[in-house]
Amino acid sequence: MNERLTKLANWLKKEEIDAVFITSPDNVFYLSGFQSDPHERLLGLAVFQEKEPFLICPKMEVNDAKKSGWNFEIIGYSDTERPWDFVEDRVKARINKVQRWAVEKEHLNVERYEELLSRFNGASFHSAEAILHQLRMIKDNNEISILRKACELADFAVQVGVNEIKEGKTELDIIAAIEYEVKKKGVSGMSFDTMVLTGANAASPHGTPGETKIRKGDFVLFDLGVIYEGYCSDITRTIAYGDINDVQEKIYQTVLKAEETAVNATKPGVLAKDLDSIAREIIHQAGYGDYFPHRLGHGLGISVHEYPSMTATNELELKPGMVFTIEPGIYVPGVAGVRIEDDVLVTESGVEVLTKFPKTLVL
Amino acid sequence: MNERLTKLANWLKKEEIDAVFITSPDNVFYLSGFQSDPHERLLGLAVFQEKEPFLICPKMEVNDAKKSGWNFEIIGYSDTERPWDFVEDRVKARINKVQRWAVEKEHLNVERYEELLSRFNGASFHSAEAILHQLRMIKDNNEISILRKACELADFAVQVGVNEIKEGKTELDIIAAIEYEVKKKGVSGMSFDTMVLTGANAASPHGTPGETKIRKGDFVLFDLGVIYEGYCSDITRTIAYGDINDVQEKIYQTVLKAEETAVNATKPGVLAKDLDSIAREIIHQAGYGDYFPHRLGHGLGISVHEYPSMTATNELELKPGMVFTIEPGIYVPGVAGVRIEDDVLVTESGVEVLTKFPKTLVL
Repeated sequence: MNERLTKLANWLKKEEIDAVFITSPDNVFYLSGFQSDPHERLLGLAVFQEKEPFLICPKMEVNDAKKSGWNFEIIGYSDTERPWDFVEDRVKARINKVQRWAVEKEHLNVERYEELLSRFNGASFHSAEAILHQLRMIKDNNEISILRKACELADFAVQVGVNEIKEGKTELDIIAAIEYEVKKKGVSGMSFDTMVLTGANAASPHGTPGETKIRKGDFVLFDLGVIYEGYCSDITRTIAYGDINDVQEKIYQTVLKAEETAVNATKPGVLAKDLDSIAREIIHQAGYGDYFPHRLGHGLGISVHEYPSMTATNELELKPGMVFTIEPGIYVPGVAGVRIEDDVLVTESGVEVLTKFPKTLVL
Repeated sequence: MNERLTKLANWLKKEEIDAVFITSPDNVFYLSGFQSDPHERLLGLAVFQEKEPFLICPKMEVNDAKKSGWNFEIIGYSDTERPWDFVEDRVKARINKVQRWAVEKEHLNVERYEELLSRFNGASFHSAEAILHQLRMIKDNNEISILRKACELADFAVQVGVNEIKEGKTELDIIAAIEYEVKKKGVSGMSFDTMVLTGANAASPHGTPGETKIRKGDFVLFDLGVIYEGYCSDITRTIAYGDINDVQEKIYQTVLKAEETAVNATKPGVLAKDLDSIAREIIHQAGYGDYFPHRLGHGLGISVHEYPSMTATNELELKPGMVFTIEPGIYVPGVAGVRIEDDVLVTESGVEVLTKFPKTLVL
């Protein structure tokens, strides 16, 4: 078994849990190396204290699963077979009576939960998330190399977007150009729908890009990321196009100061909530406290949002190997929206900023 | 209340269920008009037999929710507040003691389910999916118009891809070109990761595009769709580039015959499984029965995979207003992979094929 599976099996022993059934594609990928999006079909990985783990997936993906390097049992089922019959059978062949199960309570749906409840009558169900978050939160060297590359490609994507800025172009025009160039570089997909927002649109933290045209005197906000070898990057830059006014300038400089101060404060031992407070206080002092309505950032890896969550209430202590975003923003409806976001890695001695695109206001 | 909410409230009365809590972004959009992807944050819609429904979403999305036309209560929560406290409070303000809840058992995760179980102690939980599938499965005129346009854009995307075919180009080059042109047309996103597969790659029903180069004598398979006003299209075409051999030709003609025969058999009253059998039998007769490992197709709408599921075991009777894919395929490892897919609408008199790109083998 690989190191991740071994750690999971050791956790099962420690918690006296007989078996864990993993169903989220991200955790299946993390533990098995097999990356797949089965949509509504069942994809599952069962891991035991001592017995051989198994993978279950649609029959048409069995070959891909083998190619991914999974060396244990693989069960393929067709669209007319009942995958839960196989799960029950294979589990009971390994363990006569499962007393304690672990499942991903943040992912497993009620329908599947009820399947397990009825087939493993009397078993108790515990959350597997604590250990899975803990494992995934600390990136190993291989993951860090991949994330560095994913961030380099995100920098490149912003550069493409900046080069495209021109009066009269729409947000969607620029998105098309960015994704074209990025995919030509061999990237298979974006971490999320690329956002290019300008003018009033950028004043919403979750705006939707459309046919709005770029005009002189407006900000253009880029929020994007790429998936590289299964790992996500996520960067935001806000650029002034032409001359902006003093209020816009003040908002920009406030966000920049908040962002850079939080980045520079990142090191082992600091609490997640402290970083959030550092940035929030700077924005509050500048009079924009009501216009920063979201957390400072989120963990990043196989999922574009994972642990740690950088909120004002998270007491988690930062440790080397954690990777997350730092992305304060100020959104004043009708005035301006600015967000600046970097992906950072906590190192033994402090911080490595993985996204490197310049943060100057005008380019 | 809109017609959809009224139908849902009527179903609650009929089933003697006090309230339903909807958490899937697709169903929230369908019922409220508010489209949002809250990732791990809670987005919920509570609907009652008689009382006013409410929407709960992250605070930073409240303005967008209002703009979407939702006229009832909206509760916004910040990243440091506990949204379930609000849910409990607002529900109990409307109904003193909920005895019977409905939830989306195929979507709601165990963690959220346990929140509801603990806050509404003693309530029973029933699946809301039957009614939601039933409502969404029959498209209204507005939805059909949008789907027609989404399919037109998918046809356009395939045309872009076909124009790009050239010896030495990679699968990812062609994907980049397709998505660029489609986004220039104002499309915000693709229904799923665009697939362009060639040579051996196309011989897997779920292959992953990469740096494989197009060569004369190979098939090029396009499987793609666009999201237009929240609705998905999904088309597959397989094109011969240069001269192909007799086996490739036979596989192509078999899939084409299976596809067209199933399309032409589509009309009200036919069972979903009959269409699957019609296509499967043609492929079986040609000797490729073992190489068609998936169902005939799937419903299409706000989700790229929804009901009806066109499997060999689905006894569902087709009705006017249903929209689904018909997509038989033959995948012979090391030889060739061919799939042809159309999106069809069941009409009063038979079928309307929404995707119209030609199905000739060589272009």
